[in-house]
Formats: sequence, C-alpha cells, structure tokens
Amino acid sequence: MAETIFSKIIRREIPAHIVHEDDRVLAFLDVGPLSRGHTLVIPKEAAATLDALSDESAAAVGRLLPRICRAVLRATGATAYNVLQNNGAAANQAVMHVHFHVIPRTQDAAQPGLGLVWKPGKLDPADAATLAATIRTHLA
Amino acid sequence: MAETIFSKIIRREIPAHIVHEDDRVLAFLDVGPLSRGHTLVIPKEAAATLDALSDESAAAVGRLLPRICRAVLRATGATAYNVLQNNGAAANQAVMHVHFHVIPRTQDAAQPGLGLVWKPGKLDPADAATLAATIRTHLA
Repeated sequence: MAETIFSKIIRREIPAHIVHEDDRVLAFLDVGPLSRGHTLVIPKEAAATLDALSDESAAAVGRLLPRICRAVLRATGATAYNVLQNNGAAANQAVMHVHFHVIPRTQDAAQPGLGLVWKPGKLDPADAATLAATIRTHLA
Repeated sequence: MAETIFSKIIRREIPAHIVHEDDRVLAFLDVGPLSRGHTLVIPKEAAATLDALSDESAAAVGRLLPRICRAVLRATGATAYNVLQNNGAAANQAVMHVHFHVIPRTQDAAQPGLGLVWKPGKLDPADAATLAATIRTHLA
C-alpha cells in the first residue's frame, strides 16, 4: 500500500491533535472539520479500505468507537452525529488509509456537519432474494 | 429503549433478506436501498445510538464489517462504497436502533449510492488544542 499522511501521523512525523492512542488504533481531530469535534479514528494497520483490514484491527476500531463518540459529544455538547467511512475515490475517500469520521451535527450554520443526499429506491423482492443468497455464498 | 422494526426483524416477526447472523450481529438488505447491495449491519443489543452500545457489541460489529464489505463487493461487482452510521434524528437516523449502512457506489444513475455534501472548515490550532485536551479528559 502507498504511504499516506496517516502513516506519518502514526509515526509522529507530522503533528496532529491526538485524542487517543493504543496498540492498534489512533484518533485525532480532522484538519478539515465539517463541524467542531470532527474526529478521525484509524487503525494503525495500513489498509487502504475496510474490506482489506484485518478482523483484529476492525474489532479494535469498532470497540473504541462508542467511547470516542461519547467523549466527542461531551466535549462539544452535540447530541446528534454521523459516523462515516469512505472506500475508494468514487466514494469520496481522500486518504487511502482506513479512517472512520465521527462528525457532530451542530447548529453552526457555517459548519453544521455532514450533509447527506438520500434518494432511496425500493428493494425488488425477486432480485433481493438472489442478491442475498449471493452475498451469503461469499460470506460462507 | 423503544421497540423498533429492527427488534422485530431480529426476532423474525418481520421478514428480511438476511445475509448473516451470529450471537451478537445481524446483517440484511435495506428495504430502501440507495444502491444495489445496500446492506445494514446491526448489533442484536437494542441500543439506540453508537455511544450507548456496549464495547462487546461494538467490537463484534466492527470485526464483521470487513467480511460483509468483501461479500457485498463480490456480489455486486462494486469497487467503491461508503459505510455510514447515523445517530439522532438531526443526523438522519430513522430507526432508533444502531445500524451501519454498507452502501456500494455504482454507475446506476437511478441508484448510484450515497450522496455526500462535504464543506470542510479549517481546524483552528488554538481551539483544536483545547478541544483535543477536553476530549482526552472525557476519554480518561
């Protein structure tokens, strides 16, 4: 995997406002926040996308997320927030090292948080049955 | 916590296109997909928001996510995708039971996937130092 700015932050070659570090996970403030308190939670393992991350690192990040969310909410006073993890340039991933965004929703008109465009379709029952079976096959 | 449609799906009182089940986690197709393959991964534990979820359930969901993502990508042929988890009505949460969306990014103009509105600010160094210290205090 190509070297990223996050590898440099993990190695302390680039400064960051770090809020948590353990053997597997690092968390720090995003330098381009969508709202005050916008925090990144990353595995130290250098996987580009979540599907390439080890189970152990994924579990460690998952386990930490509720704690990070609670601390960000308490520190900012926010009560609503989004957790977002983008994979691939076509899905808005900018740094090719797995990262979970924790983004408070705020009343600040200039930096309210994450904007979502939600245009749901309707699940087609026949296609859904085929698709679910195919996903199950790949999980088996 | 109030009863939700997801509790009924877990108890099999409402049908769903389930792709995975274990002791702690259930995954099934979203009935209002943003793209083909849009899958929900939920803890069986009935927490409304991620900050209220136990470490054990959060770790179990986190550990499973890479496997689910790989299977969804293989089943759909997608190569980019977003993982999104909303907390609170103000942050677009519709069902008050923790759920992670796995949303493939597609070439389908009608159902391309998740749309994001990304308007980053710039981290103020002085405020960031204070904020990071406050978050660390709440994590301690």
